[in-house]
Amino acid sequence: MERRISLITLGVDDLDRATRFYELLGWRRAAESQAEVTFFQLVGQVLALYPRENLAADLGIRTSGAASVTLAQNLRSRDEVEFLYSEAVTAGGTPLRTPYETGWGGYVAYIADPDGHVWEFAHNPAFPLADDATLTLPSATRPAT
Amino acid sequence: MERRISLITLGVDDLDRATRFYELLGWRRAAESQAEVTFFQLVGQVLALYPRENLAADLGIRTSGAASVTLAQNLRSRDEVEFLYSEAVTAGGTPLRTPYETGWGGYVAYIADPDGHVWEFAHNPAFPLADDATLTLPSATRPAT
Repeated sequence: MERRISLITLGVDDLDRATRFYELLGWRRAAESQAEVTFFQLVGQVLALYPRENLAADLGIRTSGAASVTLAQNLRSRDEVEFLYSEAVTAGGTPLRTPYETGWGGYVAYIADPDGHVWEFAHNPAFPLADDATLTLPSATRPAT
Repeated sequence: MERRISLITLGVDDLDRATRFYELLGWRRAAESQAEVTFFQLVGQVLALYPRENLAADLGIRTSGAASVTLAQNLRSRDEVEFLYSEAVTAGGTPLRTPYETGWGGYVAYIADPDGHVWEFAHNPAFPLADDATLTLPSATRPAT
């Protein structure tokens, strides 16, 4: 079975507010969206926004605070990191860390969306993006030994 | 700019324990992994496991408990949902919800990994997977109007 993450669901306090934040970033709410769920088409993957109480009901538990997660959008240049960081803050994101040079040669910024979901905007010269913007680790493109 | 999530990072309490859980599911630790980070190659995307304290240091904040997130692996049949659920529980995952029929015609199960990160295993006949296992919303394959 292939390893994959097909769909990422963010539990949100206010679905309209959360949807607006991503729309302000230029994302387009997909036609499959409904009153209680917003879908966005990503490269080969879907992001869903979904009220926290619905999520808790589906899971049968209150989702725990223990799970720290970041969602990264890797970019093609440092300029793109600065551009997207600034766009996200203008759209109402909470600045967590302004763009900075990492110890591993990358360039990274962090923001939180209106519900506290952390996004990383990153330029990583060691992990180049394909033409279709997918990310494949260099070792995974070498023949298996 | 394309919309994408290139890399998903899970903050973990014990990197060896977390890595072992995914290896027990048949995932292979990528050569790019280091002492303080484990990478897994997914379809067009990378999953990273990273100690919570390193994550907190990078972000400049303790990650908040407010962010509820699920990671979904969509599958090709109900049998695959049952198989993967059972595999994940055997690997040490916490069963949250045994496979059940949803109101929207799907078949879904939930488990938590050793650090509480919630995985959804889903068969959704309305959102078919491509041959390469990527998920594209039906509306995104229709010409824009």
